[in-house]
Amino acid sequence: MNKIFALVFVFVSVSTLAAERPFGLVLHGGAGVIERTSLTPAREAEYRAKLTEAREGGYAVLERGGSALDAVVAGIVILEDSPLFNAGKGAVFTADGTCELDASIMDGRTQAAGAIAGVRHIKNPITLARAVMEKSEHVMLSGDGAEKFAKQQGFELVPNEYFQTEFRRKQLEQAKQREAAKKTSSLLPADHFERVARYGTVGCVALDRSGNLAAGTSTGGMTNKKFGRVGDAPIIGAGTYAHNATCAVSATGWGEYFIRVGVARDIAAQLEYRGTPLKEAAAATIRKVGQLGGDGGVVAIDKAGNIALPFNSAGMYRGWRLSSGSAGVAIFSGE
Amino acid sequence: MNKIFALVFVFVSVSTLAAERPFGLVLHGGAGVIERTSLTPAREAEYRAKLTEAREGGYAVLERGGSALDAVVAGIVILEDSPLFNAGKGAVFTADGTCELDASIMDGRTQAAGAIAGVRHIKNPITLARAVMEKSEHVMLSGDGAEKFAKQQGFELVPNEYFQTEFRRKQLEQAKQREAAKKTSSLLPADHFERVARYGTVGCVALDRSGNLAAGTSTGGMTNKKFGRVGDAPIIGAGTYAHNATCAVSATGWGEYFIRVGVARDIAAQLEYRGTPLKEAAAATIRKVGQLGGDGGVVAIDKAGNIALPFNSAGMYRGWRLSSGSAGVAIFSGE
Repeated sequence: MNKIFALVFVFVSVSTLAAERPFGLVLHGGAGVIERTSLTPAREAEYRAKLTEAREGGYAVLERGGSALDAVVAGIVILEDSPLFNAGKGAVFTADGTCELDASIMDGRTQAAGAIAGVRHIKNPITLARAVMEKSEHVMLSGDGAEKFAKQQGFELVPNEYFQTEFRRKQLEQAKQREAAKKTSSLLPADHFERVARYGTVGCVALDRSGNLAAGTSTGGMTNKKFGRVGDAPIIGAGTYAHNATCAVSATGWGEYFIRVGVARDIAAQLEYRGTPLKEAAAATIRKVGQLGGDGGVVAIDKAGNIALPFNSAGMYRGWRLSSGSAGVAIFSGE
Repeated sequence: MNKIFALVFVFVSVSTLAAERPFGLVLHGGAGVIERTSLTPAREAEYRAKLTEAREGGYAVLERGGSALDAVVAGIVILEDSPLFNAGKGAVFTADGTCELDASIMDGRTQAAGAIAGVRHIKNPITLARAVMEKSEHVMLSGDGAEKFAKQQGFELVPNEYFQTEFRRKQLEQAKQREAAKKTSSLLPADHFERVARYGTVGCVALDRSGNLAAGTSTGGMTNKKFGRVGDAPIIGAGTYAHNATCAVSATGWGEYFIRVGVARDIAAQLEYRGTPLKEAAAATIRKVGQLGGDGGVVAIDKAGNIALPFNSAGMYRGWRLSSGSAGVAIFSGE
């Protein structure tokens, strides 16, 4: 009888513990000048459906006891595979008319990290970033070298055409026309167009049932990109950061400002060094970006399962689901 | 009479102010397994002389009222031009037998930053990093694209042979022999050799008479480098960081660990978010690197002119000079 009581007690305790340990994830599909007037209802519905699919894909991993890393990769792969977002298929075009992809990932448990910059034939860049983290002695590989490593690791290389879509080709043409026009006239209104078309990133942060945090980010960079420009997405500490002691962050926006502020690390540093709550820290860092003249946003989750999704642009594609029951997808400001 | 008194008073006040405002710089020429037994007295004297020359070159800029940025570039160019250090001339070889160079710079006054990764024909990479900061809308450019930008900016491109030295070619051969041997025997002692030969960086941080901070870092990367590996030197927040409100930092060491910790930003964050004194903050961050298994060091200067030069390797080539009169060069631990 005592034995049965003890067993029941252990069972109840374990269940309570499992139920009490929060888990969940937040993801983004890019931030920028996303206005209600510029999205048709059909297109908006497509975005919401894909964000929901990615959110559920990642959450399912966590729910069945999978790792934060696995959840982050699962969520990001769904967004990379969709032509709606500027990552993987549907990436924006460089000035040369090709797609070049960057990605990074960080494991909050070990502070291991992996990043790739400027690859052209990797279907899911986030999986190569993970391979760099887990299978190489390096953190960051770039260009042809990164693809050589991918081949060694048995990655299938896809033709660059796989990533290319008509929509993005038109954006490149518009960007080039605009650039040419700018040289002859300074009267054109500022870069409203550029901010719509040029940036975009996907990313995901997760907290798993074991209390491990992870963050990942993937992007096609910026339309009409030149000179081998590298943005914040593959920069650990700027676009991506995770540490079990604090939080996991993935950023999206005007990469140059995000590098200068070191956005992802700056948020975690406020938690680490002065115990600032996540929401407050994330908002403060986005204010810093704004003060320098940049825009964009982040998704973040801390070790207690609190989340933050601040942005100072007109919109940010985003989704979240937590074990507490809170879940949603949103695009515009104020949603 | 009153007028003369007033003039004298103003003159004395300004002089006192100028005299009281501290300025100075700290630089490094790489950290690693530098042991007394492995350096001949003649070679050691060469290192000390070149560190002194770079220190004086940078300090002269500050003394005549020049900017921290100019001082950082002046100091680093002298180290890049010397075959003794792994940056510019005398850079280590990649696995392909070429030299590939990375550099970055940050202006503490504006948080503007510039970085280049994987260039092969830029005599002084730190000057191209500065051009990226000042003449482009970007922070980081890589590979051929960075050199295309350099050409547009009127940089003279040098043949890769300019950087190559016999000493570094031998290091590559030894690294390759070692790599081949490793595949057949696991009994070889750990990477003592690798740590001596593989890493190395130069960097400089400065505080000028106007209270502006700047930091810069330049490197040839690691011997036998593969896969387009990028280390911490061109990563803003890892190898280089500067902010007038806190401090300027340049790092050197096992780059992968320095990226994961976000070394330069981590030191500044401790000053920013909990008012930690510079020496304490820099030491704490190097301890973090050590805890993960990495080694190396930093040079740092804060807005008040305090300096820190911690490292957890056997040695670090370093030099400093402050308006307070303190000046020196050192190589080994405990000097």
